[in-house]
Amino acid sequence: MKFTAAQLAERLQFDLQGDGDVMLEGVNDLRKASPGELSFLASAKYLPFLRDTAASAVIMRTAQLADCPPGVTALITSDPYLGYARAAQLLYPPRRYAPGIHASAVVDASASVDESVHIGAHCYIGAGVALEHSVVVLPGCVIEDGVRIGAGTVLEPNVTLMSNVVVGEGCLLHSGAVIGGDGFGFANDQGEWVKIPQLGGVRIGNDVEIGANTTIDRGALEDTVISDGVKLDNLIQIAHNVRIGRDTAIAGCTGIAGSTVVGERCAIGGGVGITGHIEIADGVMVTGRSFVAQSIPEAGSYSSETPLQPTGKWRRNYLRYRELDDIARRLKKLEGKLQEADDE
Amino acid sequence: MKFTAAQLAERLQFDLQGDGDVMLEGVNDLRKASPGELSFLASAKYLPFLRDTAASAVIMRTAQLADCPPGVTALITSDPYLGYARAAQLLYPPRRYAPGIHASAVVDASASVDESVHIGAHCYIGAGVALEHSVVVLPGCVIEDGVRIGAGTVLEPNVTLMSNVVVGEGCLLHSGAVIGGDGFGFANDQGEWVKIPQLGGVRIGNDVEIGANTTIDRGALEDTVISDGVKLDNLIQIAHNVRIGRDTAIAGCTGIAGSTVVGERCAIGGGVGITGHIEIADGVMVTGRSFVAQSIPEAGSYSSETPLQPTGKWRRNYLRYRELDDIARRLKKLEGKLQEADDE
Amino acid sequence: MKFTAAQLAERLQFDLQGDGDVMLEGVNDLRKASPGELSFLASAKYLPFLRDTAASAVIMRTAQLADCPPGVTALITSDPYLGYARAAQLLYPPRRYAPGIHASAVVDASASVDESVHIGAHCYIGAGVALEHSVVVLPGCVIEDGVRIGAGTVLEPNVTLMSNVVVGEGCLLHSGAVIGGDGFGFANDQGEWVKIPQLGGVRIGNDVEIGANTTIDRGALEDTVISDGVKLDNLIQIAHNVRIGRDTAIAGCTGIAGSTVVGERCAIGGGVGITGHIEIADGVMVTGRSFVAQSIPEAGSYSSETPLQPTGKWRRNYLRYRELDDIARRLKKLEGKLQEADDE
Repeated sequence: MKFTAAQLAERLQFDLQGDGDVMLEGVNDLRKASPGELSFLASAKYLPFLRDTAASAVIMRTAQLADCPPGVTALITSDPYLGYARAAQLLYPPRRYAPGIHASAVVDASASVDESVHIGAHCYIGAGVALEHSVVVLPGCVIEDGVRIGAGTVLEPNVTLMSNVVVGEGCLLHSGAVIGGDGFGFANDQGEWVKIPQLGGVRIGNDVEIGANTTIDRGALEDTVISDGVKLDNLIQIAHNVRIGRDTAIAGCTGIAGSTVVGERCAIGGGVGITGHIEIADGVMVTGRSFVAQSIPEAGSYSSETPLQPTGKWRRNYLRYRELDDIARRLKKLEGKLQEADDE
Repeated sequence: MKFTAAQLAERLQFDLQGDGDVMLEGVNDLRKASPGELSFLASAKYLPFLRDTAASAVIMRTAQLADCPPGVTALITSDPYLGYARAAQLLYPPRRYAPGIHASAVVDASASVDESVHIGAHCYIGAGVALEHSVVVLPGCVIEDGVRIGAGTVLEPNVTLMSNVVVGEGCLLHSGAVIGGDGFGFANDQGEWVKIPQLGGVRIGNDVEIGANTTIDRGALEDTVISDGVKLDNLIQIAHNVRIGRDTAIAGCTGIAGSTVVGERCAIGGGVGITGHIEIADGVMVTGRSFVAQSIPEAGSYSSETPLQPTGKWRRNYLRYRELDDIARRLKKLEGKLQEADDE
Repeated sequence: MKFTAAQLAERLQFDLQGDGDVMLEGVNDLRKASPGELSFLASAKYLPFLRDTAASAVIMRTAQLADCPPGVTALITSDPYLGYARAAQLLYPPRRYAPGIHASAVVDASASVDESVHIGAHCYIGAGVALEHSVVVLPGCVIEDGVRIGAGTVLEPNVTLMSNVVVGEGCLLHSGAVIGGDGFGFANDQGEWVKIPQLGGVRIGNDVEIGANTTIDRGALEDTVISDGVKLDNLIQIAHNVRIGRDTAIAGCTGIAGSTVVGERCAIGGGVGITGHIEIADGVMVTGRSFVAQSIPEAGSYSSETPLQPTGKWRRNYLRYRELDDIARRLKKLEGKLQEADDE
């Protein structure tokens, strides 16, 4: 797509300084941009690149206008990174797929498929599935019986949705995601595991994004719930009966154990482990690789983990960790001894 | 399925108190249950919900009978959670699939497929594959040459089994699982990695469950072995030549490096990392997110990991961790000094 | 394949001692080998097994010749493990697949497919895809529009390559790998996440191996880059704009966050977490489960993590960790106090 700077400014409510007629056909980094491209200045540390950029227009804050070279059109907004996101969405709209069902797809006769839906090669659509307006299902996806998918949702190739899964509107599910596999529930009978039938489903809200090879298990009795606007990165494990509040974002390789409730607008880093049966308040940030073993009742930023060191030095500290409680007790004793000496 | 309380009691060897003729058609949580549903009381902390439940029957211990409301049939057993698992299995038997091979499936002429087997759309079954009685292969699965699968095993959609994989009877493999990919084995030639052909296979016993997107690599020379009754959750990595003993359960996101031997009846939490070439005894429990760098020769519960803190406070401790050995040495020196002073 | 010991010695530049005419048809462990098999002695700790081996030939160092039994042919090289890798590659060459496109595969008319290429059942090959000489695409793979794959590269079943992905020659991509999914990029608009279109691609060099269910995201503006000779194990997450230098190997379950640059010839252990926007020098080794939160400017071995302990003992140290900075400060104070006392 192409827009003039003035058209973008109008659509996205940017202020404009400079040539509004310059035509913008792409986006790029300040250093890499060519004429005809739009760029953005999200942080003051990139100011030197602004002065030398070949971009035709740059999204920036008012405070940065003084550094904008004369030939560059300034698009002014209070949050240039957000402005860039919105402008890039206009310049690079999602690919559109022609309605229709590929001849090699297998669609159960009882499925309800809107005529605007695109179904790619080798897909399987089970009994009673409902695909609403403009749903896109790319090659190799398997949608088991009874799944419902809301308007505009896109399934990248090789996604699997098991029965009793409901996906809202405007979602994007990346390749290899598995939604609705059994939760990991067993009772123990003298050492042998007895499977507990997993009878719940998975309910996914609107505008949810789910990363590649991420897995979300069905609930044991009730549903696992992913609320509107949640963004999940790749290789995340969401266990049965987890509930994630709206607009929470979770980075890759994080695992959340069963029945945990994560609040709204949380930001969970990558590689985080969250134990089961706890509650995390709204607005909690957990930094990457942290281990969350207890409920977090208040918003704020939380962390765990120990620092990287050269292996030789690390090993000595690693071994000492086992004495940490002992160290604390001995220190307290010494303090007491010296206090006594002082008191005498 | 439907059963009267008396029928369930007979089949599962529960004692019964109350109306044995009440018909049970489903299971539910004590708080959510409606008439016609069965519930269970696994822990004394749910006793208040027992008094108000609308369930028609509840599985409980003898000790809890006093709290059972008059209109509720009590099914009495020493382990109500286990009793619930068995009752739910009766009320919700696994789905049955009609025998037959979907027209879109590709089955090599040399494959041996029992006539009771169900093969779904777009499956691929390679040369010499053997599928025994009542095996179910759901859409999109790929089974490479020579794989053997025992009676009653179910492959959810999009599972991949590479050649030289043997799966026992009564197993359940969830979507996206990959069994029999190459182990990660390379020799180094002046900086360049030289692949070591991975010549072993994977042997999976009976009654094994393997979670969604879990990967189990083939052995280098001998087989990787998953024993009878093992339960693996989602997104687990089992490296080449690992051997896991019977009835061991492993939660999601755990990784086990090459040639490690895990004993029988172990319970390994989620997100655990287990190094290669070690041995873990029978009956070991490892709590979630622990790091196992050495053999564990004795049964018991083991843990590692550090606690979550507000990020600001955490950072100070994080930095100090690098001084831990130094702290221990300095403390010892102070203790010595004070001891000397005492001795004088 | 079969070779005489003399043929192997000639091809692989081994020295030979003993019968060069002995025919070798397989490889095995020293303890398990039968006549007709080749074995190797990589470490002095296996010397006792050399004396009793039934192998017909063994790859070893000169220093071990004294322990070689009379009936065993010695193949002598300075690195027996590397020698074994090369010999096993000769004895077990990769499977060859007949050229041709399976009737059930869907190949876009605009794709350029060399006539030596093998495409398996139920594959989808999009518009403008280019598959060079001897590429192998096994069942269930989806290759989206415009992907290019170099000569001799093999895709195991159920691999997904999204558009704007380029794969070099001689690569091996294991099942379930997803290359070119969107990077995890969002701007925040008053709590709501706004997707940043991911416009870059993924460039994979020659001789790269990518493990089962590993995910590599496309770049935001520029490409994500995996250089020649890189080896990635299973269930690894490579975020957008990461660049990995040549001949670096990374073990399973490791995650690398966005825009991080990993050097050449690095060895990254399993379960490692590497934060975004940092640089790791060439020749860095990171031991398993470490957490890398800052750039590593120098070659060497690095570690983090805390030790496993019995859970009861661990809990006391776990709780004390929160006091570590306080402990350090109190210790310093005590030292000061005693120093003062000494000075008086």
